[in-house]
Amino acid sequence: MTLSPLAPDRFPDLPVIKGVRFAAVSAEVKYKDRDDVMVAVMAPETAIAGVFTKSATRSAPVLDCQAKLGGEIFAPAVFLVNSGNSNAFTGSAGERSVEEICASAAAVFDVPQTRIFTASTGVIGERLPHGQIINKISDLDARLSPSSIESAARAIMTTDTFPKGASAEVIIDGKPVRIAGIAKGSGMIAPDMATMLVYIFTDAEIAQPDLQVLLGTLTDSTFNCITVDSDTSTSDTLMCAATGASGVDVTDSAGFTQALRGVMLDLAHQVVRDGEGATKFVEIRVSGAASDAEARTVGLSIANSPLVKTAIAGEDPNWGRIVMAVGKSGAQANRDKLTIRFGDIVVAENGWVSSDYSEDLGAEYMKQQNLAINVDLGIGGGLGTIWTCDLTHGYITINADYRS
Amino acid sequence: MTLSPLAPDRFPDLPVIKGVRFAAVSAEVKYKDRDDVMVAVMAPETAIAGVFTKSATRSAPVLDCQAKLGGEIFAPAVFLVNSGNSNAFTGSAGERSVEEICASAAAVFDVPQTRIFTASTGVIGERLPHGQIINKISDLDARLSPSSIESAARAIMTTDTFPKGASAEVIIDGKPVRIAGIAKGSGMIAPDMATMLVYIFTDAEIAQPDLQVLLGTLTDSTFNCITVDSDTSTSDTLMCAATGASGVDVTDSAGFTQALRGVMLDLAHQVVRDGEGATKFVEIRVSGAASDAEARTVGLSIANSPLVKTAIAGEDPNWGRIVMAVGKSGAQANRDKLTIRFGDIVVAENGWVSSDYSEDLGAEYMKQQNLAINVDLGIGGGLGTIWTCDLTHGYITINADYRS
Repeated sequence: MTLSPLAPDRFPDLPVIKGVRFAAVSAEVKYKDRDDVMVAVMAPETAIAGVFTKSATRSAPVLDCQAKLGGEIFAPAVFLVNSGNSNAFTGSAGERSVEEICASAAAVFDVPQTRIFTASTGVIGERLPHGQIINKISDLDARLSPSSIESAARAIMTTDTFPKGASAEVIIDGKPVRIAGIAKGSGMIAPDMATMLVYIFTDAEIAQPDLQVLLGTLTDSTFNCITVDSDTSTSDTLMCAATGASGVDVTDSAGFTQALRGVMLDLAHQVVRDGEGATKFVEIRVSGAASDAEARTVGLSIANSPLVKTAIAGEDPNWGRIVMAVGKSGAQANRDKLTIRFGDIVVAENGWVSSDYSEDLGAEYMKQQNLAINVDLGIGGGLGTIWTCDLTHGYITINADYRS
Repeated sequence: MTLSPLAPDRFPDLPVIKGVRFAAVSAEVKYKDRDDVMVAVMAPETAIAGVFTKSATRSAPVLDCQAKLGGEIFAPAVFLVNSGNSNAFTGSAGERSVEEICASAAAVFDVPQTRIFTASTGVIGERLPHGQIINKISDLDARLSPSSIESAARAIMTTDTFPKGASAEVIIDGKPVRIAGIAKGSGMIAPDMATMLVYIFTDAEIAQPDLQVLLGTLTDSTFNCITVDSDTSTSDTLMCAATGASGVDVTDSAGFTQALRGVMLDLAHQVVRDGEGATKFVEIRVSGAASDAEARTVGLSIANSPLVKTAIAGEDPNWGRIVMAVGKSGAQANRDKLTIRFGDIVVAENGWVSSDYSEDLGAEYMKQQNLAINVDLGIGGGLGTIWTCDLTHGYITINADYRS
């Protein structure tokens, strides 16, 4: 897999989060020459919150995690994730695989099964070889280290071309609170959510119900605003563990909320930047809509339009396709009130191409790697931003190959 | 443009429809070496019905046609269509172009402007050179012939690789009633409707309001059940002209309804078969849904999924992606009640891959050019069928090239 041209230079330096240890190992679930199972073990009393795919055919691990959220928090907690097989649409065998992995992990890490949260990502519909994973749990336990988060980020990759990490530090009441997160995902990416696994760790102190509400709210404006291909996975999982080890209560802290949102948005953008076949990172800002919801609808209509996405791939400033995508969205729109800008360049206004606009200007703008498409509907005060990438031959090559 | 591998062998022999004459001419709107304007002139008292794009940014000709439907029918009627420029998002200049074309055509054909129905298809946002079209109206008038329907079908093509025609004859009360239709469209194709122009002619006798209702109803189960790329055009137009020259009243005739639906479905399928880059024609039949509407939702979710479409392009029997598309559709679904069949091959049932299924069997099936994906949700009695094509490198090549 060629590295995405939109990849960051390197994996960032992530801070150690007090109360969390990581390990990764190769269980050869599918890939033979790399780690494919990761574990994160959190100290007792860590609050665990999660947001999951809304798919009606969601996987056995997702169902299991959802059932366990909000339970007791006195014991340590464990995230255990494999790549290479999603354990989705594997019937009751899938549920048994989850149970057996949880039972083994509970024994090795000496925690109740209700504190084991698994996830699986990869091919749908093939039986998970859970025995191979179970055989490696002792190895994982032996390797636990507070500084191994990058190896965990690498172990959960599937078609990703780079591991994804982000962090923040915020000073609250004079004390530092740290946040570090990792993510995987590059195809089957759409709101609610993506084939995306995201794990975020913080030493902040916050009650589980508060963390859960905060995570849900921030997901709406971060991970639920990205789309690569409009497809939604059966396995999407975003979990956040707050160990409390900083001794700083962040309940209702605007600083913490902002820092957490920053980490989530950074990871979400990295997922788009690793979109299958992506060569352009596109921010679509919609304003002047009848409501925020309609702004979002218009943004997604543009972001998911194959004709818009292929035009961007071809560096074609084809604003007519943006007009088309606005028109088909179902949101209130009025041809004569619509303004379209590429970055700061006014392309269309008052129902037609702008008199200041030239095709050369637009074509030059489209050559950039990071693009901003700004659409003002001129109707109301609704705002929304969506992030996406282009649709290229690379996407077809990756996804039309016989199952890889 | 390479001929679609799914193209029919040749343009069909279409019957002459009494009361309709056709002509085509080159006005060099954009293309230089082919006809790009067509006209159809219908006898007085022809009932004209139409169904149009629901886009909020629909083109000036669409708005003009919509305003004229249901008016008086005593004069002859005219369809006048150009390719190469869609006259969409061209501000008030677009409306003036329509008015000037209608005024000139009204003078040449000696009919009121309210009986002139224009359409334009091609690039969005560029001013229509309506003078070039107006200059050719006398030539069109001189060339009118009842047998020139194929040249009309060719003149309205844009990225189409073949002209599309279909016909039917039905005997009612011992007398023949004939229907002949033409269509264009191959990209920006999605329900409600496509970048699609469709003109259907019949010598049946039927009142305009009845024809309008019939056309709307039949569109729902034909043109609104096809999708190439989920994008909806600003110009979609389907018009039907009933001259009454057969002397047969077809009001409430089941035979006529069936024949008209057959012509519409045939043309709709031809549009899919000419889908940009298409190499496979796919019928998606959904049954067992909570309602017909939910069956349609599931069918469209599968048909519009880039991951399903690329798998089909790669001849990969990747039923996991179908599970994904069912799950994300938002329709009621239950993993353990879902049955997926490729043609007659049971692939998945009872929440998992079928014990009789082998990957070789599925892979062999996917090599065919015409595929049927059957999904039973096992919940209720809702039914729906959607037709689509695969997503290939050809689509990217056609649409990522600088505006052609």
